[in-house]
This record gives sequence, structure tokens and C-alpha cells, in this order.
Amino acid sequence: MPESSTWVLTDVASETYVHSFELHPEDVPGSPPGWWVTKETLHGGLRAGVDLIGVSNGALTFWIVPTRGMGIWKGQFHELDLGWESPLLGPVHPKFVNLSDRNGLGWLTGFDEWLCRCGLVSNGPPGDDNGTPLTLHGRIANLPAESVLIGVDPQPPHAIRVTGEVLEGALFLGRLRLRTTYETVPGSNCVTIHDEVTNLSAQPAEMQMLYHLNFGHPFLEAGSKIEVPFRELAPHTAHAAKALDAFDTYSGPVAGFAEEVYDFHPATDTEGRTVALLKNASESLGLAVRWNAAELPCFTVWKNTAALEDGYVTGLEPATNFPYFKGHERTQGRVRVLSPGEKWSATWSVAILDSAAAVASVAGEIAILRGRVVPIIHRQPVFGPAG
Amino acid sequence: MPESSTWVLTDVASETYVHSFELHPEDVPGSPPGWWVTKETLHGGLRAGVDLIGVSNGALTFWIVPTRGMGIWKGQFHELDLGWESPLLGPVHPKFVNLSDRNGLGWLTGFDEWLCRCGLVSNGPPGDDNGTPLTLHGRIANLPAESVLIGVDPQPPHAIRVTGEVLEGALFLGRLRLRTTYETVPGSNCVTIHDEVTNLSAQPAEMQMLYHLNFGHPFLEAGSKIEVPFRELAPHTAHAAKALDAFDTYSGPVAGFAEEVYDFHPATDTEGRTVALLKNASESLGLAVRWNAAELPCFTVWKNTAALEDGYVTGLEPATNFPYFKGHERTQGRVRVLSPGEKWSATWSVAILDSAAAVASVAGEIAILRGRVVPIIHRQPVFGPAG
Amino acid sequence: MPESSTWVLTDVASETYVHSFELHPEDVPGSPPGWWVTKETLHGGLRAGVDLIGVSNGALTFWIVPTRGMGIWKGQFHELDLGWESPLLGPVHPKFVNLSDRNGLGWLTGFDEWLCRCGLVSNGPPGDDNGTPLTLHGRIANLPAESVLIGVDPQPPHAIRVTGEVLEGALFLGRLRLRTTYETVPGSNCVTIHDEVTNLSAQPAEMQMLYHLNFGHPFLEAGSKIEVPFRELAPHTAHAAKALDAFDTYSGPVAGFAEEVYDFHPATDTEGRTVALLKNASESLGLAVRWNAAELPCFTVWKNTAALEDGYVTGLEPATNFPYFKGHERTQGRVRVLSPGEKWSATWSVAILDSAAAVASVAGEIAILRGRVVPIIHRQPVFGPAG
Repeated sequence: MPESSTWVLTDVASETYVHSFELHPEDVPGSPPGWWVTKETLHGGLRAGVDLIGVSNGALTFWIVPTRGMGIWKGQFHELDLGWESPLLGPVHPKFVNLSDRNGLGWLTGFDEWLCRCGLVSNGPPGDDNGTPLTLHGRIANLPAESVLIGVDPQPPHAIRVTGEVLEGALFLGRLRLRTTYETVPGSNCVTIHDEVTNLSAQPAEMQMLYHLNFGHPFLEAGSKIEVPFRELAPHTAHAAKALDAFDTYSGPVAGFAEEVYDFHPATDTEGRTVALLKNASESLGLAVRWNAAELPCFTVWKNTAALEDGYVTGLEPATNFPYFKGHERTQGRVRVLSPGEKWSATWSVAILDSAAAVASVAGEIAILRGRVVPIIHRQPVFGPAG
Repeated sequence: MPESSTWVLTDVASETYVHSFELHPEDVPGSPPGWWVTKETLHGGLRAGVDLIGVSNGALTFWIVPTRGMGIWKGQFHELDLGWESPLLGPVHPKFVNLSDRNGLGWLTGFDEWLCRCGLVSNGPPGDDNGTPLTLHGRIANLPAESVLIGVDPQPPHAIRVTGEVLEGALFLGRLRLRTTYETVPGSNCVTIHDEVTNLSAQPAEMQMLYHLNFGHPFLEAGSKIEVPFRELAPHTAHAAKALDAFDTYSGPVAGFAEEVYDFHPATDTEGRTVALLKNASESLGLAVRWNAAELPCFTVWKNTAALEDGYVTGLEPATNFPYFKGHERTQGRVRVLSPGEKWSATWSVAILDSAAAVASVAGEIAILRGRVVPIIHRQPVFGPAG
Repeated sequence: MPESSTWVLTDVASETYVHSFELHPEDVPGSPPGWWVTKETLHGGLRAGVDLIGVSNGALTFWIVPTRGMGIWKGQFHELDLGWESPLLGPVHPKFVNLSDRNGLGWLTGFDEWLCRCGLVSNGPPGDDNGTPLTLHGRIANLPAESVLIGVDPQPPHAIRVTGEVLEGALFLGRLRLRTTYETVPGSNCVTIHDEVTNLSAQPAEMQMLYHLNFGHPFLEAGSKIEVPFRELAPHTAHAAKALDAFDTYSGPVAGFAEEVYDFHPATDTEGRTVALLKNASESLGLAVRWNAAELPCFTVWKNTAALEDGYVTGLEPATNFPYFKGHERTQGRVRVLSPGEKWSATWSVAILDSAAAVASVAGEIAILRGRVVPIIHRQPVFGPAG
């Protein structure tokens, strides 16, 4: 096993906090040129006080936000932008976000990330859950990390890792800890996300996780397509049901577009592995999202092809559940219950495909997965409360 | 056209942020002595983390708060204080303000400014607007500026300008941008405010703006008077109606005084220009607020002559609307709708009058404006829902 | 009278703020070795931006949090920990706390202190108080101090004092000022708290104060006991009523334990003085809380012997009232009304007892106080609304 050289950037338990940080190939003897890791604190506007960690493997660069639950703000693969243009200028410090605002929709006032976690106690729309008001997509994206660690393997391929821990808990309100590790190898087109959620309470605890992974241009454009190998597909709403026949095709930006959402149970290989593909119109660019359905049995595609000014974006969302209200998801067995000390984990990845060959290769994988099932397409939102 | 020398203090898009800043006459060759511009960040109490920009033209000094939507905290004209004493110690960082608090009255826990904008999506009292909960006086005063720019004209009269941009927007919640410029000329008794609100969304957007300009001692005292040339006047509430005959006269501080509010449609010249005057009892001090009714058709006088300890203050409030609930203002055609890309703008000013002659001169202007109309005085709150 | 040497750490009115600070015996000629005072600002996680003042008298050390209403985060007496383990990692900056959250229970998301004040306008559970929504335990613990002052007496015994002021007020929302002084003498086992709450408004104001003083291990363990000399005792709830016979005895940690609360009117000496004692199972360790019932007529014991992971803790809570909803407390005459300018004050103390002799000595005091009354034990929650 390769040992990893580690640098602690934040660890509140030991009162460790590094204000700014840079790591380069010369800090890890034998590592290839071109990679770097940085840490800074942002100033001004809604980002005042936000910690930002930059990771570049030389080809793929991304910006992790410990202050926002270890989400990823934006990324770049060579010249390609990863993420989307939100109507706001983030990353937004949680101090400017009131989750309870607007009947529990306040989460939207902080949302501009490439990757934003929805959880841990709940995700989905706001509502009253047996007397407890839940807010849109939960608290985790607006909680700061308690620890942040950088690691680089001294042995080839010199994997770079950023690990962070975020605690969602309080007296009488449970105690879940997210531990996430982002891993990427110098020169690769891929980042792997390994998450553990541990129930630190002595009581059982419910848990939900949805990965809100979002893309705009250049991956999203008129004629872009999403390929999902699935066992079952249903529109999320009656509105989405109307556009079901074109569920896998994207339009260009349309002012006033009302979001369309589709829910999938993926087809997998015998190990539970599956992959979804977003590709541009000419099939020369794409994104492959790989996950394991044993960990993340649900997948949601969020089509929000609104005007560029208002957020032209699609979400590829592997999850423990569909983004219905938690109360409904509970009745469907899609809320995890963790025993005291129990750990939930998931490992998944995003790869950027910048050639027709790479896109075709993933499409080929998907074709094989499709061949393993007879897909069911529900024309109505059968996964939801009205179904 | 004189060119302006400019200094960027904040620009989050380019990751520019200047922690502290000082500008003096020697930085602008040929400019007169005595003016300055400074920038600092405050520490401690409710002001922790608040950016403050000081502007002095040598006679008139004021403190702009980028962190609070580019409002003006306090000012001074020679030895005269501009502003009022709030029961709290501001300026208050928005992180300590929960707008939803106390049934939507949380805005009050941050309010202590000389000039505070109320908007942009709404102003007026909190309430439910077709399912959307609106909070008192909207969000803009608790949003930080995304950019701040200082400019000084190299040519006489060497106008000093502070320009800031504040974005009020989020996914599904619209995208309005305020761009404000404060301008003052060395040695003058006046500051001009030029505001633009642009709808950056591809969808139409509603907009409201009310300038909450507030004065206490020495302009407000027993016997102070407000002069407003008006076409129409109505009390804002039944309570104010009872005191209608003394609407233009102020008492000294009265413990437990219940606020009295009066709404005006101003009389103007043929260009829409108008002016209101607040003057002290001896008519030796005053304030002239000049605006254009084509841009700001409504004017509200807020009389809150409570005890000094509880906020002895009056508001002179040019606005797009009266401060009734937005739902009502909409029915009265007093909510602006901006098309995609459309810009609303207003230019107005405040001048400090420190002599009987200056006060009399403005009173003379008002007399002329009054002569142009036959004023209507409503004895009941006809502009409101009960009218 | 000994004069005190003073150091101003924060005073927003004069724009004073000291970023870091250390005080040692050499700064106060003639003072004994071993004591110190420090000030720092914390970074990372939920504590980002929290000011922390450390005070050590050489034997007793404690950490005051100006950012959280001058509460005490944790302490230590020689090797003994003072405080408890909360499910969260504090101290929590108020910017991460939304008091209105979860139907007014948001206060819990910031709660991990050894000493946390509940007030000033209200304490107790959330609810609607004639149209005003009150949140759990009020605002004071999430308001930052406007001034902080350190003082050390130049004369023996060289008492060390930390004084802070916190303002709870806003336009139309009253104006109460807390002024607290913590005092400890080098080498002593005791800290004295002297609080003043002044109504700075010209209107009468209601006020409530409850001192939430919390202990876990090593003082709390299976077999620990609380001794309270009382005139009257009642369970706070029907649930607590069931365990009334064991009200003074603690169990070890029990997963899922539902809190049990008991309310007392203390027995006192002729001056109103009283003392409560928490002691461990072997009676070798203890805590003495001394207060005056003329100032703090109510005392509540909060038994929350949940699992260690979920907060194993007991609260000893001298207060102006019992922690029922303010509306009920008002009907019982347990809400103070302060006239304009009126000041409420209380002086109380906590002493750490680290020998059986010291514990026995306080138990002896309590026995004497008990001898002065015929205690009434109510078997039902008679102090509450159901009583």
C-alpha cells in the first residue's frame, strides 16, 4: 500500500487552521509536473469568508468549498468549463443563506455549485415531517467542514486526495458525520468521490443523500443527450410526463422553461455498477458518471434548460432516494436508517470525455448494460405520492 | 467629458478585494485640499466583518456600507450629524439579521442607517404574496455588494464617485442588479444618488424601490417641519389620520409615541422635478431632498418621534410606491415590471442647509411648486387597502 | 478600594478591537505567578470568527465567548473538565444559527456551553406570545458583545475580571443591555458572575434570565446526586413526575433517555442566600452553585443522562423564572418588568470541590438550609400550565 503524505489544513478539534496553502510537484519527490493544490479564503460579496481549495491534476482542475459542506464549486478540464452559470455570484457563504426562507426554499439562494450534496437528515422539497419542518435539500451544503486534509501518494500514480469532515448534529437533533474524499490522479480526466456517513448517535438515525451534479455549456446545448441504462423510468411530475418522449434530449435555452425531472432505477452489471452519459449534440464531448446502485439505487435527471441568464443547467443525480418529500420516500423504503455507529458509504466518479471515441466507448458500455434488462417506462409519476 | 481616475476596491468576478484603502488630494493632481476616501473593515459586536467606505468632500462626510446593500450608515456636514440614533449599535452585518424573524420583521434588527434601500423584489410590510412570504422591506439592505469602485474626476470640479453593484437573485427567484453611484463635489453640501436596477433575467420581473432616508437631531426637534409640495396627501393609517392636521409638524421625543405615516403624490415642475424640505424649529437648519416624480412618483413621511432612547427619527422616503403590502401596491399599479434586460433608474439628491437663507431659498422653490397645483388632502388612508 | 488595571479588548462605540491579547503576572506587579488572560479568534468549522477569551487563575481556567453573548464555553479546574460533550463541535458562531429554525428550536444548533444565558426578552420553549413568535431560550446567547474589558486588581488578592456588554434591542423591539462581570481570584476554586440587565428604553420592558449551567463527566456519572435545599419542588412535566422519587439521583448514560426536569423554590438563609450541590457517586468531587433567591427565585435541574454520544449532561439553572413558555410565566408573575432605566442584577458563583471534605462542607451548609423549612414536594407539575 502506498503511503500518503498528508497536510492538515483544518482540524477544529486540535485548533488547526491554515490560512493559505500551496502544494506543488517539488513537495512530493518523484511526482509528475503540472499538478497543484491550493487553499485560500475568498473576500467580498456573498463569498466573503468562504474557504476554497483548488486541486489540479494537470488536466482536470476543481475547486472544493469546505465552507459549503465540501461541495465542488466549479471545475475545468483543459479548456472545458465544468459547472454552470447560476443567477447569483457564488460561492455563497452559509451566513448569507437562510434555509427556512421562502417557506423552506432558502437553499436556492446559495446554490451555484457543480456538485452540491443534498442531505444528510433529509433532501427533497420542504415540508412538514410529522411536526418537523424540513427545508429544501437539507442542511449539509450549508455546513462548514470541521476538518480538511490533503494527501498525495509518494508512489506512482501519485493520487491526490482531499478529505473533509462535516458534522450535521445538535442536541436532540441527531449526529451524522459526512467524511468525503475526492481523489484524482495526475493527468487523468476523472475525479472519484468516496463518501462515508456515520451515525455518531447512540440512537438510530434516518439519512438521505442526493448528489446534485450540474452541467451547463459546453456539455449542455441544443441536441445534447443523456443516456441512462435503466430498469425503470418515470417522470417526476405530471408536467415532466408530458415531455416524456423526449426525456433524453435537451433543447437550447428557453426563457421561462419549467423544469422537467425524470427518475430512474438504473440497469447495472452483476456488481451493481452502472454509468450515465451526458453528451453534446455532435457527440464529441461528454461526461460519464459512474456509481454503484447498491449504494445509490436511484438516479434523477433534472432538465432545467431555461435561458442562460436564469440558469441553463442539467443535473445528473445519483442518490439514495428520489427527490420527493422525505415523508413519502420513507413510505417507499427509500430513507436509510443507520443504527448507532453504522456507516453508509458510496464511491462514485465523474469523467470528462473530450473525444468522440471516448464518448462512443461509454455509449458502448451503456448499450451492454441496457442489454441486460427489459426497461419499463412509466408514463406517469409512479414513484411519487400521486403514483 | 472629464475622465475619471478609478480604483477598484471589490470585484468578486475578478477576485479583487482591497482590505484597506486611503485616497487623498495628492492622489489626484490639481484637486483641492480637504477631501478623502477610505475603506476599512469593522470588528467586534454586530459590525464584525462589515466593510465601510468613508467619503469626505471636505465639508460633507458620509459612510457607505457595501456589506449592507450600499446603504449609507451615517454622515456629517461640518459639525452637523446626519442620521439618527437607533436602539442598536450598527452597522449590522447581515449574518446577524434573520429577515424571516418575528413574522418577517427581522429587518428591524439591522436597521440603523441614514439611508437604507427597501427593495428590490418588494418593500413594505411582511405578508404572504400568493404563497411567497415577503419580509419587511425586502432583501437588498442585507445583501453585500459584489463590486465597489471609487472614481475621482481629474478635471474640476473633481467630483468624487463611489459605485457599487448588488445582485438580488437566485435560481427560480429572479435576478435584479442594483448599480448605485454616489457623487459629491469637493466642498459641496450635497450628495447625488444615481441608481439603476436592471432585470438580468430573461423573464419579466417585478421591482419596488423605497429610499428610507432618516434624520434625528439636530434637524428633527420639537417644532421641526416638513414641507412637501403635493398634488395629493393621505394618511397611511387610521392612526395617522387622527393627527392629519399636524402632519407637517414634529413634536419633541415622546416615550411610547406610535409612528405616524403620510403618503404624498408630489407636485412637480414640468420636468417632473420636485423637492421636500425638513427644517428645524428656528428654520436655521434644513435638508432638501430632490427627486423626479417620473422616476419616484411616491413620497412618504415617516414620523417616529419616540423617546431618544427608542429612536427619535423621521424618514423622508421617495419611492416607486407607497409602503403598503406589495400585493396591494400591485393592484394600484405601483409595482414596476421590468422586461428582460430592462433598466429602471433614478437620480436624486440630499442637500444639507445650514443657514436660514438656504432654508428660505428651498422653501421658496416649494412655494412655486405648490402654486402649480390645487392640492387634495384625503382625510382617510385612501392609498391603502382600506381606502 | 483597590484600583483595577484595565485593558479594553473590544469597544465598538470607540472602534476599539484587539485581535489577540495575552496578560501575565509580569503585567501586574506584585501579582502571584500562574494566572493568565488571553484573547484569540477561532478559525474553521462552526467556530470560524468566534472570539474566545481564556482566563486562568492558576487553578481554575475558563473560556468566555464574547461572540455568543459572553457565555462560558468550557472550563477546567486543575485536571477536571468543566462542561459537557455536545453532539456538535463548538463554540458555534451565531452566523450558523437560525433561531427560528425547526419551529423555533434553532438555538439547539449552537448549544454546547458550560454556561449559556437564556433571555433577555424571553426564555423557555418557543411559541406564539400574543402574535410575537418567541424562539427557544431567546436571543442573548447568539448576540455578540459590544464591549469587552479585562481588569486585574493591583492589590492583593489581585482579582481578575472580565466584563462584557451585550445589547438586545432594535427599533420597536426594546433595548435591554446585559453587563456581565466574571471575577476570579488567583488560586481559587471559584468564579463569581455579576450580571446587570438595564432597560435602556423609555418604555417598560419585560425580562427573563435563566443561567443554563451544564456539567457532564466527571461530575456527572451513575450515582451522582444533586442536593437542593428547597421550600417547594415540582416535576416540570408529567414525564418527570413519574421519576420524581429519584429526582436527586443520576443514572449513567442511557441511549434514548428522555430528559427529566425538576423545578424548585429554594430554601434560603435570612439574606436569601442558598446553594445547590452536584456531587459524584463517591462524594469526592462536587460543584457548589451559590445564588440569592431574592435575585433568582427559581431553580431548575435538567437531567439529560442520554448516551455520551448524544449529550450526557445535567443543567443547574438559577433563574428569574421556570422554563415554561413566557406567556404562562407572565400569568404566574415570573416575568420581570423593568421600568425605563431600571436595572436588574444578580450575583452568583460556581465553586469546584475536589475533595470529600469540601463536598461534605457544602452538604453541611445545605443541611442547615433544609432545617429552616418544611419542604413541599408536589407530585405533579403544578408550576406549569397544566398545574
